[in-house]
Amino acid sequence: MSIEDLPIRDDLRGQTPYGAPQLDVAVRLNTNENSYPLPDAVVDAIAKAVQAELRDLNRYPDRDAVALRTDLAAYLGHGLTAANTWAANGSNEVQQQLLQAFAGPGRTALGFGPSYSMHPLLTLGVGSRWIGALRDPDFGLTPDAAIAQLDEHDPDMVFLCSPNNPTGTALDPDVITAVLEKARGMVIVDEAYAEFARPGTASALALLPDHPRLVVTRTMSKAFGFAGGRLGYLAASSDVVDAVQLVRLPYHLSALTQAAARAALAERDALLGTVEAIKEQRDRIVTTLRDRGLRVADSDANFVLFEVTGDQKIAWQRLLDRGVLVRDVGLAGWLRVTAGTPAETDAFLEALQ
Amino acid sequence: MSIEDLPIRDDLRGQTPYGAPQLDVAVRLNTNENSYPLPDAVVDAIAKAVQAELRDLNRYPDRDAVALRTDLAAYLGHGLTAANTWAANGSNEVQQQLLQAFAGPGRTALGFGPSYSMHPLLTLGVGSRWIGALRDPDFGLTPDAAIAQLDEHDPDMVFLCSPNNPTGTALDPDVITAVLEKARGMVIVDEAYAEFARPGTASALALLPDHPRLVVTRTMSKAFGFAGGRLGYLAASSDVVDAVQLVRLPYHLSALTQAAARAALAERDALLGTVEAIKEQRDRIVTTLRDRGLRVADSDANFVLFEVTGDQKIAWQRLLDRGVLVRDVGLAGWLRVTAGTPAETDAFLEALQ
Repeated sequence: MSIEDLPIRDDLRGQTPYGAPQLDVAVRLNTNENSYPLPDAVVDAIAKAVQAELRDLNRYPDRDAVALRTDLAAYLGHGLTAANTWAANGSNEVQQQLLQAFAGPGRTALGFGPSYSMHPLLTLGVGSRWIGALRDPDFGLTPDAAIAQLDEHDPDMVFLCSPNNPTGTALDPDVITAVLEKARGMVIVDEAYAEFARPGTASALALLPDHPRLVVTRTMSKAFGFAGGRLGYLAASSDVVDAVQLVRLPYHLSALTQAAARAALAERDALLGTVEAIKEQRDRIVTTLRDRGLRVADSDANFVLFEVTGDQKIAWQRLLDRGVLVRDVGLAGWLRVTAGTPAETDAFLEALQ
Repeated sequence: MSIEDLPIRDDLRGQTPYGAPQLDVAVRLNTNENSYPLPDAVVDAIAKAVQAELRDLNRYPDRDAVALRTDLAAYLGHGLTAANTWAANGSNEVQQQLLQAFAGPGRTALGFGPSYSMHPLLTLGVGSRWIGALRDPDFGLTPDAAIAQLDEHDPDMVFLCSPNNPTGTALDPDVITAVLEKARGMVIVDEAYAEFARPGTASALALLPDHPRLVVTRTMSKAFGFAGGRLGYLAASSDVVDAVQLVRLPYHLSALTQAAARAALAERDALLGTVEAIKEQRDRIVTTLRDRGLRVADSDANFVLFEVTGDQKIAWQRLLDRGVLVRDVGLAGWLRVTAGTPAETDAFLEALQ
């Protein structure tokens, strides 16, 4: 017996599960986690919030997570309310729900690669066809280039990613506006790394009032240091939220997740206090590598995409041999490194040299 | 603007979200929750386990949830190991993953209604076609009747539910064996209520060694009183677990969920201590209603399906008017009531009379 003897779907045969290697290495800079553990005061606040839920864990949680969505809306600002937000176990689940509601079998979704590699996987997972459009060779994307590819493929749904993973650069709002005007379907702007953007970078949240087919997805995994808590969310028109509720699994979000996320949001000053320090390390990596003559993409995120000499697989292994785990995102000649603590930057810069 | 102006899938137009009314009523016997709050000792154990995870919540959780799966296998027994188990945010998500791996667009799934109403919804959600086969008019299912319907429809996947929700009765193992021998695809046996079965009721777990296309799904929502914690799981051959990992969302199960579920499993003597008391109330409801001359389905679960005089919608509202919330599962002339505490049974029996 093997998996091949089971009646799995033909399109899954021969595939391997998605995911970066989870290796026990001293310096882990491969999944864009926030390198800072939670401060004691935040730990205490979350512990207290979770504990208050435990006695009644025999009851199903609030299926609509209204209190959490209210808090998320307050955090985002822009005049948003609970009716404009939705949350799930990571932004992957949010995006899967959006695909179930607005794409699915017989429809298509398009994204501009290189970008977040889960977008095509989520698309295939709901039975839609993925259209891999491309960014410019320098990883940029202009309104004209985006529109030309939409013209060619006429997708049912469009994924944008800003700041873009794995390249790091935020999109010019003109690109998003152009795509919104051209696309006939939903436009998802994945802003997982928004909190790390360089000064003056606009969020697509500002475009929501004028664009009912726009959805902005966010996560608490990065800036909030809440990767282990699994909380992704979206902001959109209330109609989009209604549509997602047609496909969400009932009680998808546990009472513990809702309570922990609310406590983390209440402690956001402490949690987001790490963002500036991480941005400093991000800028330090960019500057240092450029000083060393390497090509480096502009970064509005907590990671940096940099060029290596020769095969990136070999460079990845050599860094690992020196105790530094970075990410090979499958881009020939490039690697991605997470910006973490100053000591982690030291270790990375030293290992790379 | 309304949801109808958005490019949602045609098959979602006009639908409403799944879910029982969440009403603020004194006696809630509509979602088959365990009526007993968690004992203080269990609350403390879970709180401690969760707290130990909080400092490192900046890191992604174990993507494979190996420790939790090891504990689940130990709980199930039958010689199962972590390689034979998989867990997700509720058995709904487990079943959705099974459908993504083994059904999906262009394939079909069949179940024998009346049964758990999420099975068809999950099936439609992944783009498969649902085939609503039927149980006998007395809610039973014989091997011959099951095989005849498989012969007619030749589905890619079969859902069985034992004990069956909403009727309450466990399947004869001969039915499961007959279906396994006849079906060419995967056979899911949903055992959400297994812990409440009457003495002598066999679990499909015993059939696993001889049937590589069998999957048994379970939940901690019912007997464990862990509905708010959201933990569903499956037992199957390791190949099935490998297949599910091709479609699961990466890091789908939070560090808090994994820790809380492990603590609950460790405290299972205390948590499952409520099962006998609930079964007593279940049997009391069955006996009392039969003494009153009502038809009642045999129950191996923590709920009872009973016949009402006249329209069940009117009976449901009259019970609600008396402060008792039960479930109208859409079966003409029948209602479903959860077996809870003795006081809840008192209130229900009095309100019904």
